[in-house]
Amino acid sequence: MDEVITSTQNPRIKALVKLKKRSERDDQGIFLTEGYRPITRALAAGFRFSELYYCPEWFLGSNEQKVLDDAQRTGAQLIQIGKEAFAKIAYRERPEGLLAIGKQWNTTLNDLKLSDNPFLIVVEAIEKPGNLGTILRSADATGAEAVIVCDAVTDVFNPNVVRASTGVLFSTPTVITDSESALKFLKEKGVKSLAATPAADTLYTDTDLTQPVAIVMGSEQFGLTDAWLNAADLPVKLPMAGVADSLNVSAATVAIAYEVVRQRSRP
Amino acid sequence: MDEVITSTQNPRIKALVKLKKRSERDDQGIFLTEGYRPITRALAAGFRFSELYYCPEWFLGSNEQKVLDDAQRTGAQLIQIGKEAFAKIAYRERPEGLLAIGKQWNTTLNDLKLSDNPFLIVVEAIEKPGNLGTILRSADATGAEAVIVCDAVTDVFNPNVVRASTGVLFSTPTVITDSESALKFLKEKGVKSLAATPAADTLYTDTDLTQPVAIVMGSEQFGLTDAWLNAADLPVKLPMAGVADSLNVSAATVAIAYEVVRQRSRP
Repeated sequence: MDEVITSTQNPRIKALVKLKKRSERDDQGIFLTEGYRPITRALAAGFRFSELYYCPEWFLGSNEQKVLDDAQRTGAQLIQIGKEAFAKIAYRERPEGLLAIGKQWNTTLNDLKLSDNPFLIVVEAIEKPGNLGTILRSADATGAEAVIVCDAVTDVFNPNVVRASTGVLFSTPTVITDSESALKFLKEKGVKSLAATPAADTLYTDTDLTQPVAIVMGSEQFGLTDAWLNAADLPVKLPMAGVADSLNVSAATVAIAYEVVRQRSRP
Repeated sequence: MDEVITSTQNPRIKALVKLKKRSERDDQGIFLTEGYRPITRALAAGFRFSELYYCPEWFLGSNEQKVLDDAQRTGAQLIQIGKEAFAKIAYRERPEGLLAIGKQWNTTLNDLKLSDNPFLIVVEAIEKPGNLGTILRSADATGAEAVIVCDAVTDVFNPNVVRASTGVLFSTPTVITDSESALKFLKEKGVKSLAATPAADTLYTDTDLTQPVAIVMGSEQFGLTDAWLNAADLPVKLPMAGVADSLNVSAATVAIAYEVVRQRSRP
């Protein structure tokens, strides 16, 4: 951290810009975390970044020095970047002057340590980073033990997923797998799959959600595939009062997840 | 509809591109609706477009002709556009070959016809079009009678709001006003304001939502202002199980809105 990189033509800046591409990130097995909140949450969760790029001219608050200190203490190299160059590597329109690089990790179904009465969220082929990030955030808020991402269309390590999750990706166990493995896992563990589909007869509120349960949600465009619909223990629907026949997938997930919380907190 | 506009330099194309700017839309009092679903819902809700631009080369399905017919029958001029030129006026990455222009409208608080037991959603200074659109969609799904948008930061007629709402904007009464007027309106009508804030002591699920009620949600960054917090009849919070202290605003809205539905549907 002796020198400040100011040139947008600097090879390091160019290499960082390349990381906006998923293939580059995956080839190198790394990902980007941008912004004060996600980086702070990552450090609080014990995550160790390899590099932290920072630019005081973009800082929004006064606590950034603590982030730099914490990152450095846990092994990150600190690299200061000039204002213009930082804007080039940032993916946010209004950068916060903090961008960290870390290694992708891989949690498997076998790694999950389930409670006696599990509550999980399973998503199939979600397309939009914002939806996946919001689902992770809702999983954190409702105390879901893990999010199982099946047949991923959206890359969990997409910077926009990390951002939309506000960094809870680092503390919520997130497994990337396929639908067949996830279905087998749920059956083995005795966790009932609660498949949300407009075709169901039963309302989610009329279902016992105090038993071991996994909320299973399909893609934005197509909903759940037949593999899930046919195997589901509990097909459920949400009431739809209006002209539209479906909700945003992350909205439907959080509505059901909070019903799990409500039922489980009843005396 | 005699001629197909193919040149991206055509004055009409240039004028349409300019409409991507809010100031241009507001100056002309018009807005854009793109895509099959929102345009179909608009027509179903009785909305009359002035112009419908279409490009069969981008069509995704086979029902587009019906949309053209319906729009024309209700007064829209049809204008066919070449593939490249259409991509230029579209704001979606993968256009669906349908883009309509209509007049902005203005629903006032006085225009609202409330039921005997109103259920409303009020939002203050929401910033992101995706959140406002998702809240409109959730209002439709949960049967909220109206959405009252206070101190708008995001323009309700932003094409991304129309899109994220999947067109329910056309059927859900949406009032644009200021917080003071909205507060006064709720008091006059005897509608309890349910202000969601992490600082509240009472859970939303421990609150009687079968009475006349308005869910009131603040901005993504700052939550509700003191004006709302001080005047709120029922401050409520959502349980937060995880490391984060808040939910996405549209997620919190739909969780509470579905609790209104649940309580009101109990025998």
